[in-house]
Amino acid sequence: MRIGILGGGQLGRMLALAGYPLGLRFRFLDPAPDAPAGQVGELVVGAYDDPEALGSLVESVDLVTYEFENVPAGAVEWLTGRVPAYPPPRALETAQDRLSEKRLFEACGIPVPAYAPVSSEDELEHALASIGLPALLKTRRLGYDGKGQARIMDGSMASAAWRQLGGVPCLLERLVPFDREVSVLAARSRDGSTIVYPIVENEHREGILFCSRAPARIERRYLQEMAEAYACRVLDALDYVGMLAIEFFVVGDQLLANEMAPRVHNSGHWTIEGAETSQFEQHLRAILGLPLGEVNLRGYAGMVNLLGSLPPLEALLRVPGAHVHIYGKAPRPRRKLGHVTVLAASAEERERRLAQLFEVIERAGEPAPRA
Amino acid sequence: MRIGILGGGQLGRMLALAGYPLGLRFRFLDPAPDAPAGQVGELVVGAYDDPEALGSLVESVDLVTYEFENVPAGAVEWLTGRVPAYPPPRALETAQDRLSEKRLFEACGIPVPAYAPVSSEDELEHALASIGLPALLKTRRLGYDGKGQARIMDGSMASAAWRQLGGVPCLLERLVPFDREVSVLAARSRDGSTIVYPIVENEHREGILFCSRAPARIERRYLQEMAEAYACRVLDALDYVGMLAIEFFVVGDQLLANEMAPRVHNSGHWTIEGAETSQFEQHLRAILGLPLGEVNLRGYAGMVNLLGSLPPLEALLRVPGAHVHIYGKAPRPRRKLGHVTVLAASAEERERRLAQLFEVIERAGEPAPRA
Ligand SMILES: Nc1ncnc2c1ncn2[C@@H]1O[C@H](COP(=O)(O)OP(=O)(O)OP(=O)(O)O)[C@@H](O)[C@H]1O
Ligand SMILES: Nc1ncnc2c1ncn2[C@@H]1O[C@H](COP(=O)(O)OP(=O)(O)OP(=O)(O)O)[C@@H](O)[C@H]1O
Repeated sequence: MRIGILGGGQLGRMLALAGYPLGLRFRFLDPAPDAPAGQVGELVVGAYDDPEALGSLVESVDLVTYEFENVPAGAVEWLTGRVPAYPPPRALETAQDRLSEKRLFEACGIPVPAYAPVSSEDELEHALASIGLPALLKTRRLGYDGKGQARIMDGSMASAAWRQLGGVPCLLERLVPFDREVSVLAARSRDGSTIVYPIVENEHREGILFCSRAPARIERRYLQEMAEAYACRVLDALDYVGMLAIEFFVVGDQLLANEMAPRVHNSGHWTIEGAETSQFEQHLRAILGLPLGEVNLRGYAGMVNLLGSLPPLEALLRVPGAHVHIYGKAPRPRRKLGHVTVLAASAEERERRLAQLFEVIERAGEPAPRA
Repeated sequence: MRIGILGGGQLGRMLALAGYPLGLRFRFLDPAPDAPAGQVGELVVGAYDDPEALGSLVESVDLVTYEFENVPAGAVEWLTGRVPAYPPPRALETAQDRLSEKRLFEACGIPVPAYAPVSSEDELEHALASIGLPALLKTRRLGYDGKGQARIMDGSMASAAWRQLGGVPCLLERLVPFDREVSVLAARSRDGSTIVYPIVENEHREGILFCSRAPARIERRYLQEMAEAYACRVLDALDYVGMLAIEFFVVGDQLLANEMAPRVHNSGHWTIEGAETSQFEQHLRAILGLPLGEVNLRGYAGMVNLLGSLPPLEALLRVPGAHVHIYGKAPRPRRKLGHVTVLAASAEERERRLAQLFEVIERAGEPAPRA
């Protein structure tokens, strides 16, 4: 069985590494000739909407999937006319636009931060008046790792924010004073069966995910149940197939949905060692219509991204319980070059191991982005 | 860092899958154009003693290792003159010849079954008289998976056994009435540090490994300590670098060494999910001089080889706790096509899951080799 993957980044690479043991083969499409997945599978270099490149991707694969959601709608349409592709196009379209995403959450009865669509400076003034300050202006499309966002702390910053984002269609969101950020990872198979992983606690720095903990440091059991119910509603609403991640703000007893990713997600990397089935294998099982795998934890997991530069491998491997994942990418400031997962027998031991890891990363030179 | 591997079978394939997360790249040498490692890395097709093929293997690698021990001595010499290669040549030479192997065990104070070298039919008669019956005649070189062996139950079978094995230099061994078979997996890094995994219990069928259990169903704690001491003696005697496996017969309170493998070993495949560090990653850490990884268990693991034909993936994945590894090889009777590891929270649960797995394998058609 051959799988075609749109995108040849680290997510594609880890999908392939999880899929080889199942006897699968992989072919990637990516515009970058040095895409990291090319080191572990066949890489077709080309634009996502180049019919020739797409043709060469699908010609010898049985199934197509995505490692990121910003594939042009035309390309998705072209593909789905030729070969089965999962997750469904509607999930991609929804996730590509923050407005459709919010509306889907609302349709599923999932609370979201106060927001308003904004397509002119005038509308921004009105939106600010109704939503209040502080607020975040976000481009509706193509944002990631905190790019395409501007904070508005007082009214005088509005105009600059609008111009900074280039005057494209935006969403204004109330800046939520969250207690924590969490994400829920869930999968739905072709037969409609679903599984949900225990919720993950995420720490961002400068808008980039820096550290994830699973299980989250949250005592209230109902938050897990709430997250599971929310995830299943979204999965069913989209007739979804594959792995889905939804990010939430925890505010008191509420979960406010921030955004979703119709794919494997950075906050699920700990599942490689920390869960009975990794999110990568789970995604492949789901899109192949195979039985989903168990999601029980193998202890307390902590995941830290390696951003911008790589500490010496030797120092990372000295941290007890550390599992290192290097993506084979050229260093560049703030770039995700790898991650490390530590496993521990207790939440306290996890913190000790994470602290050791943070130390190695900070000692290695380029300071980690500050909280 | 680029690693060259002599041999492109499933062991090489799993080494690469364990090494990619460490940021390593792989190039394999194998005479078979469809060698399974070729699906996950660069494959040079050629004989192990073809200087051109060897040249093309080493030209762009920093380090060479082996996924099997029967590399011609000349090739090893050629290689080690050009690029660092681990484990050391002496370990390969020793493991290639059952007689040197037995002598090494004895030099390390490790008991072995009664044996005698045999290089003529006459010598066989004498050896039978001194060693007793029943006995096993084994070729000194190139035996694997029970090939190159003949049982001698009474004197009248001796001559046929000698002819069956082709009159090559042999070893006669007393057939040991063992309680169990176990193996010990150990690693030694370039700085001389060593680690030893908990002993594994192995069940062979028709001379092929069929099932491994870790930890072994052995209450006597001192057998673990004995195995560790034996393994460390062999590692140090050979100034070894890499993973080493030694197979033993358990006879009462004794461990009798059967043979060793200077590489990752089939009886260590459960470590991928069942131990904190897999034998594949451990081997790479050792030969790269990186710190060795922890070897603690993640529960009760059982590993079953998929021999000759593959059951439906779907049926295998339905077994709770099952982790499937398919090697991408063409089916052929008795051929190792893959393996499945089940993880469980107790020894009893492991047995239940193994029983489910055996059922799936037997239902799939070609009967598993009988015990
Ligand atoms: N409404 C909000 N209130 C408070 N903080 C927010 C809000 N929206 C975003 N943030 C902060 O910014 C981070 C990134 O925001 P968001 O997830 O919307 O952007 P992104 O660029 O799409 O990120 P990702 O790479 O996770 O997809 C959030 O994880 C959170 O820390
Ligand atoms: N002296 C012995 N007494 C009893 N059984 C033996 C003896 N030697 C070998 N066997 C049985 O035959 C099996 C295979 O033997 P051995 O390991 O020597 O052969 P091999 O072909 O090199 O196998 P492998 O593929 O494990 O390297 C053993 O695991 C054991 O079950």
